[in-house]
Amino acid sequence: MKRVLVTGAGGFVGRHAIAPLVERGYEVHAVRRSQAGPEAGGVVWHAADLLEPGAAESLCARVRPTHLLHLAWYTEPGLYWRSRENLRWVEASLSLLRAFAASGGRRVVGAGTCAEYDWAAAARCDERSTPVRPATLYGACKAALATIQQAHAAEAGLTQAWGRLFFLYGPDEHPSRLVASVASALLRGQPASCTSGEQRRDFMHTADAAGAFAALLDSAVEGAVNIASGESVPVKHVVAVIAEHAGNPGLVRMGARPTPEGDPAELGAAVERLRDEVGWRPRRSLEEGLAETVAWWRASLGERVHESHG
Amino acid sequence: MKRVLVTGAGGFVGRHAIAPLVERGYEVHAVRRSQAGPEAGGVVWHAADLLEPGAAESLCARVRPTHLLHLAWYTEPGLYWRSRENLRWVEASLSLLRAFAASGGRRVVGAGTCAEYDWAAAARCDERSTPVRPATLYGACKAALATIQQAHAAEAGLTQAWGRLFFLYGPDEHPSRLVASVASALLRGQPASCTSGEQRRDFMHTADAAGAFAALLDSAVEGAVNIASGESVPVKHVVAVIAEHAGNPGLVRMGARPTPEGDPAELGAAVERLRDEVGWRPRRSLEEGLAETVAWWRASLGERVHESHG
Repeated sequence: MKRVLVTGAGGFVGRHAIAPLVERGYEVHAVRRSQAGPEAGGVVWHAADLLEPGAAESLCARVRPTHLLHLAWYTEPGLYWRSRENLRWVEASLSLLRAFAASGGRRVVGAGTCAEYDWAAAARCDERSTPVRPATLYGACKAALATIQQAHAAEAGLTQAWGRLFFLYGPDEHPSRLVASVASALLRGQPASCTSGEQRRDFMHTADAAGAFAALLDSAVEGAVNIASGESVPVKHVVAVIAEHAGNPGLVRMGARPTPEGDPAELGAAVERLRDEVGWRPRRSLEEGLAETVAWWRASLGERVHESHG
Repeated sequence: MKRVLVTGAGGFVGRHAIAPLVERGYEVHAVRRSQAGPEAGGVVWHAADLLEPGAAESLCARVRPTHLLHLAWYTEPGLYWRSRENLRWVEASLSLLRAFAASGGRRVVGAGTCAEYDWAAAARCDERSTPVRPATLYGACKAALATIQQAHAAEAGLTQAWGRLFFLYGPDEHPSRLVASVASALLRGQPASCTSGEQRRDFMHTADAAGAFAALLDSAVEGAVNIASGESVPVKHVVAVIAEHAGNPGLVRMGARPTPEGDPAELGAAVERLRDEVGWRPRRSLEEGLAETVAWWRASLGERVHESHG
């Protein structure tokens, strides 16, 4: 019997992880801070604040999961890079790892980030050869947790993997982020201010990222695995595709915002481990994923307009 | 005003840190789990279990230290390399760092270990060039904490350093460890079983290590600094010096114990940062330190014999 505890299960990635885990035959125990939020079939929901002392112990003792997919973290846009909340989430994650091992857990997969890598070292970050040298508190905390997760697993007799996320987009994204802000601005008929958009990034739909995590959990692959498409595209291409679907391309203002200092020209991902070892590929092309996301924003804004007129 | 909170202040290193900190003009607030243990002048003792949720917050709020010398850790010989207590100490250390910053702290120095380095990469570990690649859970947890301490300090406006300890010896050492076990066996007239003793290590008296920590805390030096003598000597040389002072050299059994697999032939330390940047040198030669330690064991065993005859 495979019984998985999914943390952050109400989040941007986590909510999409439940269906592929159910499909793969897991009994899914989904954790979020409150019971409110989207429901889905074949899943037991648990309300728990993992930052509370004892919360992880009591949860693991109750559920006795064989697998752990730990996606919960502090993710407030604009703040998460530098916040001391990152330290609290390392603490909570270590408590969770201890509790999971103590309650008989067998395999853990954690959520890492491209911000663990030295961005100056490679345009295409490789799990085996690109140095881990985080430039931010967020990246440092994730890299540190990965180090401990691996060493702890070896002692506790667990297997473990660490999925490093790159650039995500998808439904219900925080409105301050690139795809969400451009899509909703254009759909509202408002200007969308962008950087020059020359920088190349690896984008993935959040549901595909969640599918990759499910596949990684269900595999025997050990260690760090990039969760990305393998294709870096210029940000301006992403903006153009959004405009194609949202309309109002004339409202796009490329170059209206300065490119942040130190922003690398290219931040891509090697995906050989994900594709060949895990055996997983994204279901959506970038164009399909962006079209889907714009459609979600259209429906969402339509509902809000409808509500405000209702 | 310089007010330092010293954790692990009742420990093998910590107990020797108080006097040099007082000498350097610090108001010393020393923390140990219980009030029992050695007392010293010019110091305020606090009983606190830093593994308890909220303990660090309440301690820092009460003391409001400007400086933090964090030496407390799980150090049970034979067990600490692989124990999950290492995870609990990372959690406790992160809580402490947050509490220290929140209560107005300015400078933190943490205790690291030579076990953070890749021992296969260099016979003389250098802070700047030897890769951090811990092979044990203990080393991984210390390296991870160092990564977070540095990134957190940058965001919280603290300065920070990280003293990496090598091989320590001194009074009141756990009887299972090299110097303590050889000294007390020979003093008792019992055989002292050793490995071949060909492997070279950097040894330092625990009071010197504590003096180095006080100097590092009192400096403006940032980042990792090896706390070591800079001289690697064969273990058999250490054993010979102990026998010279303890007597019974005929009871030394070199080669009676196997050398552990993977034990590096040489594990030394570059000490340029400690010597030239911190401006600190050990007060004792190895011979003086070992003589002092054997004398301590002689007195300690004498007391015990006296007690058992009393």
